Amino acid sequence: MNHTLESLRKELDRINFQLLNLIAQRGSIVKEIGEIKKKQSVNKFDPIRERKMLDQIIEHNKGPFSDDTVRHLFKQIFKASLELQQEEHHKTLLVSRKRRPLDTVVRIGDEEIGGNNDPIVIAGPCSVESEEQVRKVAQVLKQQGLIFLRGGAYKPRTSPYDFQGLGEQGLEILRKVADEFHLKVVSEIVNPANLNSSVEYVDVIQIGARNMQNFELLKAAGSVQIPVLLKRGLSATIEEFLFAAEYIVSRGNNQVILCERGIRTYEKWTRNTLDISAVPILKKESHLPVIVDISHSTGRRDILDAIAKAALAAGADGLMVETHPDPAVALSDANQQINLTTFRELMKEIDRYNRLNTVKSDG
Amino acid sequence: MNHTLESLRKELDRINFQLLNLIAQRGSIVKEIGEIKKKQSVNKFDPIRERKMLDQIIEHNKGPFSDDTVRHLFKQIFKASLELQQEEHHKTLLVSRKRRPLDTVVRIGDEEIGGNNDPIVIAGPCSVESEEQVRKVAQVLKQQGLIFLRGGAYKPRTSPYDFQGLGEQGLEILRKVADEFHLKVVSEIVNPANLNSSVEYVDVIQIGARNMQNFELLKAAGSVQIPVLLKRGLSATIEEFLFAAEYIVSRGNNQVILCERGIRTYEKWTRNTLDISAVPILKKESHLPVIVDISHSTGRRDILDAIAKAALAAGADGLMVETHPDPAVALSDANQQINLTTFRELMKEIDRYNRLNTVKSDG
Amino acid sequence: MNHTLESLRKELDRINFQLLNLIAQRGSIVKEIGEIKKKQSVNKFDPIRERKMLDQIIEHNKGPFSDDTVRHLFKQIFKASLELQQEEHHKTLLVSRKRRPLDTVVRIGDEEIGGNNDPIVIAGPCSVESEEQVRKVAQVLKQQGLIFLRGGAYKPRTSPYDFQGLGEQGLEILRKVADEFHLKVVSEIVNPANLNSSVEYVDVIQIGARNMQNFELLKAAGSVQIPVLLKRGLSATIEEFLFAAEYIVSRGNNQVILCERGIRTYEKWTRNTLDISAVPILKKESHLPVIVDISHSTGRRDILDAIAKAALAAGADGLMVETHPDPAVALSDANQQINLTTFRELMKEIDRYNRLNTVKSDG
Amino acid sequence: MNHTLESLRKELDRINFQLLNLIAQRGSIVKEIGEIKKKQSVNKFDPIRERKMLDQIIEHNKGPFSDDTVRHLFKQIFKASLELQQEEHHKTLLVSRKRRPLDTVVRIGDEEIGGNNDPIVIAGPCSVESEEQVRKVAQVLKQQGLIFLRGGAYKPRTSPYDFQGLGEQGLEILRKVADEFHLKVVSEIVNPANLNSSVEYVDVIQIGARNMQNFELLKAAGSVQIPVLLKRGLSATIEEFLFAAEYIVSRGNNQVILCERGIRTYEKWTRNTLDISAVPILKKESHLPVIVDISHSTGRRDILDAIAKAALAAGADGLMVETHPDPAVALSDANQQINLTTFRELMKEIDRYNRLNTVKSDG
Repeated sequence: MNHTLESLRKELDRINFQLLNLIAQRGSIVKEIGEIKKKQSVNKFDPIRERKMLDQIIEHNKGPFSDDTVRHLFKQIFKASLELQQEEHHKTLLVSRKRRPLDTVVRIGDEEIGGNNDPIVIAGPCSVESEEQVRKVAQVLKQQGLIFLRGGAYKPRTSPYDFQGLGEQGLEILRKVADEFHLKVVSEIVNPANLNSSVEYVDVIQIGARNMQNFELLKAAGSVQIPVLLKRGLSATIEEFLFAAEYIVSRGNNQVILCERGIRTYEKWTRNTLDISAVPILKKESHLPVIVDISHSTGRRDILDAIAKAALAAGADGLMVETHPDPAVALSDANQQINLTTFRELMKEIDRYNRLNTVKSDG
Repeated sequence: MNHTLESLRKELDRINFQLLNLIAQRGSIVKEIGEIKKKQSVNKFDPIRERKMLDQIIEHNKGPFSDDTVRHLFKQIFKASLELQQEEHHKTLLVSRKRRPLDTVVRIGDEEIGGNNDPIVIAGPCSVESEEQVRKVAQVLKQQGLIFLRGGAYKPRTSPYDFQGLGEQGLEILRKVADEFHLKVVSEIVNPANLNSSVEYVDVIQIGARNMQNFELLKAAGSVQIPVLLKRGLSATIEEFLFAAEYIVSRGNNQVILCERGIRTYEKWTRNTLDISAVPILKKESHLPVIVDISHSTGRRDILDAIAKAALAAGADGLMVETHPDPAVALSDANQQINLTTFRELMKEIDRYNRLNTVKSDG
Repeated sequence: MNHTLESLRKELDRINFQLLNLIAQRGSIVKEIGEIKKKQSVNKFDPIRERKMLDQIIEHNKGPFSDDTVRHLFKQIFKASLELQQEEHHKTLLVSRKRRPLDTVVRIGDEEIGGNNDPIVIAGPCSVESEEQVRKVAQVLKQQGLIFLRGGAYKPRTSPYDFQGLGEQGLEILRKVADEFHLKVVSEIVNPANLNSSVEYVDVIQIGARNMQNFELLKAAGSVQIPVLLKRGLSATIEEFLFAAEYIVSRGNNQVILCERGIRTYEKWTRNTLDISAVPILKKESHLPVIVDISHSTGRRDILDAIAKAALAAGADGLMVETHPDPAVALSDANQQINLTTFRELMKEIDRYNRLNTVKSDG
Repeated sequence: MNHTLESLRKELDRINFQLLNLIAQRGSIVKEIGEIKKKQSVNKFDPIRERKMLDQIIEHNKGPFSDDTVRHLFKQIFKASLELQQEEHHKTLLVSRKRRPLDTVVRIGDEEIGGNNDPIVIAGPCSVESEEQVRKVAQVLKQQGLIFLRGGAYKPRTSPYDFQGLGEQGLEILRKVADEFHLKVVSEIVNPANLNSSVEYVDVIQIGARNMQNFELLKAAGSVQIPVLLKRGLSATIEEFLFAAEYIVSRGNNQVILCERGIRTYEKWTRNTLDISAVPILKKESHLPVIVDISHSTGRRDILDAIAKAALAAGADGLMVETHPDPAVALSDANQQINLTTFRELMKEIDRYNRLNTVKSDG
């Protein structure tokens, strides 16, 4: 390296430190401004002021950078400064692990989901069709030592002419049968107006994929004192998923379970594409428990055991699976529900896997 | 062609006709069964009976087709037969052009959307922020001879910490300013509970993309007597979009405007990917008016005029566009709103295009 | 606004100007370093040096910004500085309009595509099947005053057992028939090894969607002196599409036509989703002509006229469409090719549209 | 159930059996025709004949089914009949497990991939940059008991101005270092013309995602006698992936390893979306070994261990991972490569997981 290059680089280093120094000074001032604004209850982000500053700076730009580049660089600096002011920042969402490093454990009576607890399995028919149907499933759950009985009473269906669920009658059946077998009920609620009354029947409120950005429902779910199982939207980003959870938690209900259930892609051999990477990412970004719906994410019975194990290996706190005494005659999702015999075999596989990989209790 | 091939083909033809004959007989019988069931109010689709028939058939299968192939063929035949029974069939959705060949014209006071009417433009800010802001926009709309003022009062936002709209106060501002300028108000409603009261303020209820499968909201919108502008969901198929409209129409409100607003894809240089093919497909499949939201579908100001013309060329009955007196300081979607000067230029381009292509009045 | 806020803001403004000043100084030094390196033929980007600088800076960071934020800000500053050095920068791609503001006009004999020329139509069968078939199409093209005959001789097919095209024999047929009718041949080449010899037969080399990132083929196409029609990849971003074109142009062949042909999405009612926004974006970002393949992008015959007009309204320099004397018996893409009668009607619609919208000759 | 319904159902059953009988007769005749055609070397699918048959049938249709429905049903019957004729049918692709129920084991010298063998790990830098770099990696591989060294010599890069790899020189480095440590070389070839000569240097030819449908390259890879690692395309369906493998196997090279590497979706927090369901589906549909590229599929270092375990749990026969002595200065994919320390930790995690789950040797 020749002399000139050497000295130019030294010059660069000097400038770098000056820049660092100035940026730090800038940050401190912006922070101070933020505190003043806080006292005055003024919105922290002031776009008019920002635009004026940018205009002034651009006016003074004499190169060598283009105005666009200068504008970009200062927007980055402004943004960083603004983030210093904002408690609402992404890093500090209530659902964020940066805000709360410890795992949230969701408690349903004596049962726990998340943290160091063994992975749970939530199972049951897609739709509640009759008391007999639910009882047959509940018996098998009990035999398998499972606790969580799922079943749809309010069914959000693409067509208004498809079976829409038994409604409140469905919830009554679930409650009755669950009490008989000492099980917990997980069931979807679709109307904010029904949330309060549903608490009589269900132990965990499910919010379905199509309602992940039904913000009115999320707000209502944040106001009840009962755990919420929130499914990722059909095409929601992981970030949008966390924001949806934040709607619930920020209203006061921190008992939220995140459920990855596959996303919509071009692939036709599966109903959805299970985004397995979402599991460890959600676990890293958030302290909430994460489960995987292996039925909706694949829509295929023939790969359930592989997917169940993959979900657990990826760190899921539990699984959700649809089972029906006679899937061929199910009123919804007939193709993806497994019968009770297959369900027992799947549970055997899952148990065997869990016994081998007692990862959590190790830690 | 040799003799054997010739005679084999004749044999094939004979079998084809016999098959046709049998399938027709089958259809007639199934139809008869359907009528009996109708009288008895029994659900037409009987999966247990279907499974038994399939089992019996497979039992008798001696090849050369595999059981899978035979099952597939008979499922197709069963399905065709069932469709003969069902009024609810896709082809006969209320929103389908097969059910109603003539264009539905949506009427808002003296104004009309769809049919042979000239394309309309719905414009206004993303969010209602103040009376002054809305009035500035309304003035320009009036100057341009436009009728439909849009503005968000309830804003469904990804983050609970983003500006959520002024709520009912926003609706009041819209109504007041619209009345001043004799404009019609288009605004989004997000909670079924607010639908009835909103009718006081808005002339067209908008249902947003995130709520396209909020079926409770759709049902509520089907029960009011006021036009509904339904936006396609972020990742909804065209079929799901039509089914969502069917939820509204089947409840008694046939004044529905479909709005293509772009779908979510991997492309990063646009906010969404405008599915331009959806416009002629929706026009063919349905009798409802179709408009295009050129702001959300692109998220880019620099291609609005090209996209506006493309939407009209594809057969859209109207456009929706976001404009703001000062986009840089807008409380939402600052990047995609155009200022009022650019809006006037865009309107000039659109007017020029419409004058050249007076396609509809020709027909 | 109180006194403190006022003075803090003044302080901020002062720091902003100091930052601007330092960043500009930094830019000038980096530029100087770049010139020295250029003389020494050293790669301009030196990741080790960059990492050392970052490490040093972070070491000196005493807050209030986190190390991550400081690292991010300096990376932005480094990147901007590096871009000052690089001619290869995105903004200055050879295909970029920033590099060449004037439209590139592609010349094929006396014919021209792009610039102020009227939109062209490239038509013909998906696959060349026989001389008779191609002649029937060529006759209609001639009657319609069209110049560009397309037809696949080498067919990239998903399955190895599908019809793979007639190969060189297909090219011979195209050339023979085209010469008879004074037409120009557009045909796909799939192997770099065949590019040189194909020049005998074809006037425009087509590079298909599946080969958009077959960089060896792109490089080879950059080395011949014959126009190239480059199709966007199945799931290529617009940016990747431009980079693929850059591979060709940077090798010395600037006669490139960009062809939007739809992208892969979840939607099932169209074969692909035509990304209509790509047309004006490509026209803005690049000086190359842009055409739209209305057959592949939709895969539906029933919306071709609407889509043709939308493409032209969006600013396309031409259209590509598949037509076959008897689509029902076509050896490939039977569903999307139109017969010659429908093709004539489509051309009538397109002509009528173009007559009404003589946009380009106005300017 | 009343008398009429009962008797109508009996009638239906009778017709079902007659239909079955006729369809079987039809199948036998078509099979016979197929054999005659085979002797005459005539293409089995005759679209003109099919259309004539359909036309005749429709002519005779007197309801109750619409012509469309009848056409659909007969097309299904024709298709099933045709499939009886075709050896090339999907179910009987050479890569299909229906064709070959036993696992294919790919052999590289004494090493084996697939079948009951323990999962393998292929590791190394994204690009070969220098002999030192490759040696550092090779040492760690050796220490870890690994056999397969990967490294890119020909790099397909989005931009023509990005580092394009060292080419043949890179292959020489790989070979030299691999020989030193008794490792096997896996490296990508991008040009059919280079395939034959590359055999001197590499033990497994990699075909990259961007070339999955570069059919000329696939054909060339089918003609060499060396294993091929085929990566799934950026947006390829699982079906297209299998067809791509079929191109290679049908040319005579059955030593193919399938590599899932993530697909392109809208999600932004990962580089691609790992389609974990593809692993068990590929294992069920095909007898070829399946591995997972955990670096490209996620693009994130922080979830590699979770994803590695998920891939193995899903049934993968191996993993591919990128590691670099100093990722920060890597000439490509700097963000997703892990350094050698992290690599050692990852291998420890993977080993631990494999020891716990000795699933394969159990069977």
